[in-house]
Amino acid sequence: MSCKVVKVSDVAAPFIQELKDQISKLEVKPLLVAFLANDDPAAKKYAEWTEKTCAETGLRFELRECPRTELEDRIVEANEDPNVHGIMVYYPVFGGTQDGYIQNTVSYRKDVEGLCHKYRYNMYHNIRYLDQQETQKCIIPCTPLAMVKILEHIGVYNKILPYGNRLHGRIITVINRSEVVGRPLAALLANDGARVYSVDIDGIMEFHRGEGLKLKKHEVFETKITLEEALKLSDVVITGVPSPNYRVDTSILKDGVIAINFSTAKNFNDDIKEKASIYVPSVGKVTVAMLERNLLRLYDYQTQL
Amino acid sequence: MSCKVVKVSDVAAPFIQELKDQISKLEVKPLLVAFLANDDPAAKKYAEWTEKTCAETGLRFELRECPRTELEDRIVEANEDPNVHGIMVYYPVFGGTQDGYIQNTVSYRKDVEGLCHKYRYNMYHNIRYLDQQETQKCIIPCTPLAMVKILEHIGVYNKILPYGNRLHGRIITVINRSEVVGRPLAALLANDGARVYSVDIDGIMEFHRGEGLKLKKHEVFETKITLEEALKLSDVVITGVPSPNYRVDTSILKDGVIAINFSTAKNFNDDIKEKASIYVPSVGKVTVAMLERNLLRLYDYQTQL
Repeated sequence: MSCKVVKVSDVAAPFIQELKDQISKLEVKPLLVAFLANDDPAAKKYAEWTEKTCAETGLRFELRECPRTELEDRIVEANEDPNVHGIMVYYPVFGGTQDGYIQNTVSYRKDVEGLCHKYRYNMYHNIRYLDQQETQKCIIPCTPLAMVKILEHIGVYNKILPYGNRLHGRIITVINRSEVVGRPLAALLANDGARVYSVDIDGIMEFHRGEGLKLKKHEVFETKITLEEALKLSDVVITGVPSPNYRVDTSILKDGVIAINFSTAKNFNDDIKEKASIYVPSVGKVTVAMLERNLLRLYDYQTQL
Repeated sequence: MSCKVVKVSDVAAPFIQELKDQISKLEVKPLLVAFLANDDPAAKKYAEWTEKTCAETGLRFELRECPRTELEDRIVEANEDPNVHGIMVYYPVFGGTQDGYIQNTVSYRKDVEGLCHKYRYNMYHNIRYLDQQETQKCIIPCTPLAMVKILEHIGVYNKILPYGNRLHGRIITVINRSEVVGRPLAALLANDGARVYSVDIDGIMEFHRGEGLKLKKHEVFETKITLEEALKLSDVVITGVPSPNYRVDTSILKDGVIAINFSTAKNFNDDIKEKASIYVPSVGKVTVAMLERNLLRLYDYQTQL
């Protein structure tokens, strides 16, 4: 039993230090406004924790609570307020497709979560800059971005390989294909050269780059592979199933697998430590660091104008 | 029993005549490209019918079938092709929020269905033009727009009242709150002065304008009213429940109610004719006329440039 359990605070630490250094130089501290328009106590707790984390790095955080019927107007107000540098929303609000409408109502200039269509489209198409001069990098959704940083930290990205191809040869299963995390994550990893099995309750899709890795963006294929077959092949298994009852069957996994859970629930059994070489039980701290990093980036773009 | 059953071909006729006249003057006929990326036989049948209807008015229609994994690239290709004037997609493709992503991938310049965020945002905010000079009207989603035209035809809009306020005093229940039809419809009707009860399985919301109708856009309120209470009050009941088993209980409805069904299923029992003053059993023909009208509008914008 030699599994290394990675504390993500170690992964987050250098980012937080960098954030502190940059923020300390700013006269006006960036302001992140978070909207809470549901009654979810977990969201409220998460908001309090985000506020604390922002305070530690020197960022301003303001939680704005409102009835969901007023949410859209409050977002529009914040979009137009030059004192607000970043906006985030605790989902679900209405649930389903109406929340997609809300995501797109947040101006891309202030979308710290990177969930509006513009950023998702650019990510799927591997468009890395907002401008032709390549001075403004696109915002990437926080959780998938956090995952990339964790994978870099634990050596899954191979720095010997050229940038943009550092996952070449890796097989990764991602159990979750939500528009917020799973699908963007699969695309990001495939854009960097991995073969990704993207799993949800409706089936499995394969994301990878075209023949000879000549293509700049990933391709997606329907696949008949089963979850068991995908798991047997995978070097890395990433889970995000928000159910307290879901568990990955450890016995199927490759010996020395890298196991990462981003769900708030625990998707791996304790015996994962007897099988995995590296186990990352949660990613939240890195996600918030990426949220702050996105905020700082948007602040720069706004103040450059 | 004096219920008038409205044939929507009568409602569509003047629009179709107007379309024919306009199209006959055009040297290059507008081209509508429709993407079919699911195995739904109903969608295919609907596509064939749309093709026939387009041919009758002189429009060109091209059905492009592809695996769903290629859909996004095919849409991007059509976005960039100057020979394509309008784009539509038969949903569901992936289902859920990923279809929302596809909707926003269609360029607003070619979005005949009016489903991209820009048009929906403008509609909800009662922004009626794309440009400040007010030369280019926004595209409105086809089915809600068809509904407005039907309501105008059957006299629910009162032409004595000023434009933008012609539903003042009307109470309307809409059973369906999808992002594609029910919610935009509720907003459109409220923007024109109606009080709307918007019903879905999660509950009822009330859409209406602010006090004294001073506000330019509607407001939305949570309401504790029950469906039975809402139906008892309603002058107009509009249904769009895609289930073969769902029926509105006729006995609850106001005597002389106006009943409109836009679902492909039949949401009213036959005894509706003993209660309603006007019954509109389907709206499809007007919807396609509005689709063609949107296409012609987008064609004009593209060729004006």
